[in-house]
Amino acid sequence: MRATLYGGPGDITVGERPDPRLRTPGDAIVRVTLGCVCGSDLWYYRGVNPHALGPIGHEFIGVIEQAGADVTGLKPGDLVVAPFTFCDGTCANCAAGWTGNCLNGGSFGNHGVDGGQGEYVRVPFADATLVKVPGSGHSDAVMKSLVALSDVMCTGHHAAVSAGVKPGDTVAVVGDGAVGLCGVIAAKRLGAERIISLSRNPVRQALAREFGATDVLTERGDDAIKLIMEMTGGIGVDAALECVGTGESMATAFGVARVGAVVGAVGVPHDSLVPLQTVIFRNVGLRGGIAPARRYIPELLDDVLAGRINPGLVLDYETDLDGIGDAYAAMLERRATKSLVRVGAGVQGAM
Amino acid sequence: MRATLYGGPGDITVGERPDPRLRTPGDAIVRVTLGCVCGSDLWYYRGVNPHALGPIGHEFIGVIEQAGADVTGLKPGDLVVAPFTFCDGTCANCAAGWTGNCLNGGSFGNHGVDGGQGEYVRVPFADATLVKVPGSGHSDAVMKSLVALSDVMCTGHHAAVSAGVKPGDTVAVVGDGAVGLCGVIAAKRLGAERIISLSRNPVRQALAREFGATDVLTERGDDAIKLIMEMTGGIGVDAALECVGTGESMATAFGVARVGAVVGAVGVPHDSLVPLQTVIFRNVGLRGGIAPARRYIPELLDDVLAGRINPGLVLDYETDLDGIGDAYAAMLERRATKSLVRVGAGVQGAM
Repeated sequence: MRATLYGGPGDITVGERPDPRLRTPGDAIVRVTLGCVCGSDLWYYRGVNPHALGPIGHEFIGVIEQAGADVTGLKPGDLVVAPFTFCDGTCANCAAGWTGNCLNGGSFGNHGVDGGQGEYVRVPFADATLVKVPGSGHSDAVMKSLVALSDVMCTGHHAAVSAGVKPGDTVAVVGDGAVGLCGVIAAKRLGAERIISLSRNPVRQALAREFGATDVLTERGDDAIKLIMEMTGGIGVDAALECVGTGESMATAFGVARVGAVVGAVGVPHDSLVPLQTVIFRNVGLRGGIAPARRYIPELLDDVLAGRINPGLVLDYETDLDGIGDAYAAMLERRATKSLVRVGAGVQGAM
Repeated sequence: MRATLYGGPGDITVGERPDPRLRTPGDAIVRVTLGCVCGSDLWYYRGVNPHALGPIGHEFIGVIEQAGADVTGLKPGDLVVAPFTFCDGTCANCAAGWTGNCLNGGSFGNHGVDGGQGEYVRVPFADATLVKVPGSGHSDAVMKSLVALSDVMCTGHHAAVSAGVKPGDTVAVVGDGAVGLCGVIAAKRLGAERIISLSRNPVRQALAREFGATDVLTERGDDAIKLIMEMTGGIGVDAALECVGTGESMATAFGVARVGAVVGAVGVPHDSLVPLQTVIFRNVGLRGGIAPARRYIPELLDDVLAGRINPGLVLDYETDLDGIGDAYAAMLERRATKSLVRVGAGVQGAM
């Protein structure tokens, strides 16, 4: 099969991989239809974070090509969303709902499984991992929103859930990448009344407003903190979503959070430090991390299929497998918020 | 009046202060009966944290001596518990329950009000700040538990509440000071089934067991983490209480927390760093801070009066105002877990 291969920093190519085969009766083989490039893939591409050489990509939707003998909930032809991590559904962490931290799990395009930026993927624990999409004949817009459920929409939702967003809240979203934009969707969906998005990019500003942001600020750092504190009568926001992972974004999120609020952080941390004085002296908490996407997908899927949320709009660049190099470059050069990769053709729903 | 005065690092004496007077109609004057020395007072004593020169002490109970014209819920003779911070009860933070972060509040023995280690204290916003103790003729043991409600019991409770302790949980309590020991009481009270206390001090070990600790470990740091992970089948504890405030204690609390757990931290941070990789990659959260004591006191008071909790046992050294210097020294030299100061004599309940 053809698949995207990571050859080291700056080295993304399409090459040949052996077709994956069932290894255990619980596996399924998925024929990938749509994949994405994740912001975290860029960290590998830039050589900031390490990644095993070989297949890459952890976001995809596709069609069941083959199901192992023990797979009961899925059959060939089913359209499925893959969370970015696979999970057994039964370990102590999964049982507690933390499917992204499965003791026997891992992420796609790593840990001995192929990636979502290739034609086929062997999915371990298929019943526990994959979410079947009901219906058929879904529009291309819906399909794009489905692949957004694989990671970014769940991760934005995790930021909002971690921050405890509730009806009527004022929420600040730090970060206007795909995850931050999905954080706006999530905050709106959870009932936030005022959503302040920090963005300087006109395209993303417009998307943030479309997703529910009531205020879009171009200020950053201390200027943003000062302005948001003024906007909230000196109190701060009820919930702050940290969707970047830098020291500045973390400081901004803590700086605008009101006493007793929680910063919901999902950015992979790089130079971040938690301002512990704010934690202790203002009772501002910190929660977040690797999203338990498998737990979140069913409820978000309902909203996608009902047309209530449209996270696929964050995918503002698209290509096929041959264009994967530019899919990365477009994000790196900020020509794209997030790149869609059309891997398999013509699949718009269950067969 | 006579009061303890902070004259700088290592300089604690008893001296004269003007008798406090009502300044606003919402004030009350409290005649202090019992005060305490807090672990945080030691930071000032040691010169690690700054403190204004003059009165000191933020934990006390006493009797209303005089109530301002606007005070409706308290009258002279009432026995009251003072939370360590005063609060107006109406600001945005108070309204949200964060009474320890009142926008118009402050802590006793600071911010222009006298301290609990002296004979009288003017209490601002008396109705909102003070909690009246029902009944009369309370035993000395109960009175000691009442003064423990002023800070340490509420702070230990805040660690447990922040960490989300729930029935059936396994909880680790890092720190065997008065707050850590109260954290054990709080964890037990919230239904924890297994409570692992980290302590090397035989007196405190015994108290931890009396308060409900099921396991007492003498290990620290990585050894403690290794052992607790073994004790929990490699999963970690459901809730970790950080009641010290050092880098080692923070690392230990994060190191033993299971995926998805929250570290409830109430130690005033000194050299602490939050291990952000653990936050993100294990979904371990961090909450805590200055306890909203005024919010917690009523429910804890009920338990004290009913004999269900006995936090006054942490007060294992006592003296009168003249002995205040040794009250500090005893804690500094670890002869005492926490020092009680008998300021006014013979008050065992409402007059």
